[in-house]
Parts: sequence; structure tokens; C-alpha cells
Amino acid sequence: MFELDQRLRNDTLVVGDLALCRVLLMNDSRYPWLILVPKVAAVSEVFELTIEQQQCLWQETTAVSVVLKQLFQADKINIATLGNVVKQLHMHIVVRMQDDATWPAPVWGQGVAQPYTAQELQQFSTKLQAALQSPEFIAAKVSL
Amino acid sequence: MFELDQRLRNDTLVVGDLALCRVLLMNDSRYPWLILVPKVAAVSEVFELTIEQQQCLWQETTAVSVVLKQLFQADKINIATLGNVVKQLHMHIVVRMQDDATWPAPVWGQGVAQPYTAQELQQFSTKLQAALQSPEFIAAKVSL
Repeated sequence: MFELDQRLRNDTLVVGDLALCRVLLMNDSRYPWLILVPKVAAVSEVFELTIEQQQCLWQETTAVSVVLKQLFQADKINIATLGNVVKQLHMHIVVRMQDDATWPAPVWGQGVAQPYTAQELQQFSTKLQAALQSPEFIAAKVSL
Repeated sequence: MFELDQRLRNDTLVVGDLALCRVLLMNDSRYPWLILVPKVAAVSEVFELTIEQQQCLWQETTAVSVVLKQLFQADKINIATLGNVVKQLHMHIVVRMQDDATWPAPVWGQGVAQPYTAQELQQFSTKLQAALQSPEFIAAKVSL
């Protein structure tokens, strides 16, 4: 049975569910940073998913990337699945700006997360929920 | 016209070509580390590829991951496309071991690359070339 890893649960807010993945917002206001977690039990590598699940993961990753790029006018989207600490398979999708806290370094292990206020978190989550129901998102997902 | 970025050229050895991607071996003996570069001009984000190219990129990424996992008995495969410094779209696929130089931190920006000797580089490249022509690789690629 799928259950969200405790550390992911502590560090994020649930934005919603896609067909395969739960969408999490990292509680770090330094970057708009989403994490997609396939709602599948006991998987830590992409290739441990079924072929259909793999296709869906890549499709959802690409579609979320497109939407984030547009929504935040990102200079670059960083996509990564690492999982050296949290074993549960999860895909990072991070909006990078040339003036962000750690540009051009990757975001992991750099400095200290700066949590959103409760109000910011709610507003941000609502904005993302709307984006993931937008025609742009639907189009990006269907077209892959 | 596709031309390999100068920095990628300096830091890697060309292992070979897949249908979409050029396969590069990072010249850093601390980790078996491949980089896939779609042979497409002027693309820096995954979603700038055509749909067919995106599917091919994910397929090749997964297949290379499977082969590396088996070949090196990896504890974890790290997959990432960042591109904050080198703009040309490229996908990192890194074999991670729990006793490697920077585990569990990501590999980027950690310490200094330790180049292979010319002989090691040649041997390693030959081993990888064989792996990318193995039945396991072909099967992983076809089945996605």
C-alpha cells in the first residue's frame, strides 16, 4: 500500500494528486519546488515501475515542468530523482532563477530551507492547484 | 546542427551514440557517471524536444540506468537534468554507492573530479560500450 515517506511528509505540503503521482510543494520559499511521488508501494528506482507507470511519470514530470516554467518565468527547470536519503521514489522539479539563493549550484544540501508562512503556503498551493488544472497543463500531459 | 558543448567535451569521453543521445563518460573516477546528450541543436529543456524525442530520451535514460545498476551493483541510480551552467540539454545518470566519495549528498559541486588514467578510461569505455550493446540494454530500451 502506498504511504508517503515520513520525511517527505514533514518537509512538504500536499498540493494534489495526478493520475500516477502525488504532488508535493517543498516548504522552502527560496525556490518554487515541487516533488512528484508515484503512488506505488516500495519503489525506489524509476525502472522498478511498470512500463505504463514509467511513461506516466515522465509525462507528468514534463507537464509539471512546462507549467512551472510558464507560471514563474523560470530561467531553468531542474529535474532530478536522487533518493540517496529518502528511499521512496520521488522526482524533484525545481524552478531556478539566475538570482536565486544558490544559482547556479544544485539546490540540494545548500543552506537552510526557509519555510513559507502558513498564509504563503496556502496561497502558493492554491496557485499551483489552479495551474495543474489549467488547459496548458492538460495539453502538455495529453500530448506526450 | 548538433554540436557538443565545449565544457562537456572537456570533461568527458564519448562512449557512443544511441538513437537520440550521444553517451558521454564523465572523467571522474569517483563515480561511474554517464551523461546523455540529445543530438539536437539548441535545446535546453526536456519539453523543448518533440514528443517523440522526449519519449526517446526517457527510454534511453531508463535503459542506461538499468544497465548501470546491474553492471556496477549500484546502491542507487541518480538521474538529473540541471543545465544551470551548461545550457545544452543533458541528462546525468550516476551510479551511487553507500561508500562513495560524497554519499548521500548529490555529486555536483562536491570536491574535485579525479580523472581516470588514459588506460582506465579506455577500459571503462570499452566495458560500457559492451554493456550498451548487451541483450539487457536492448531489452530495456525496447520494452519501454
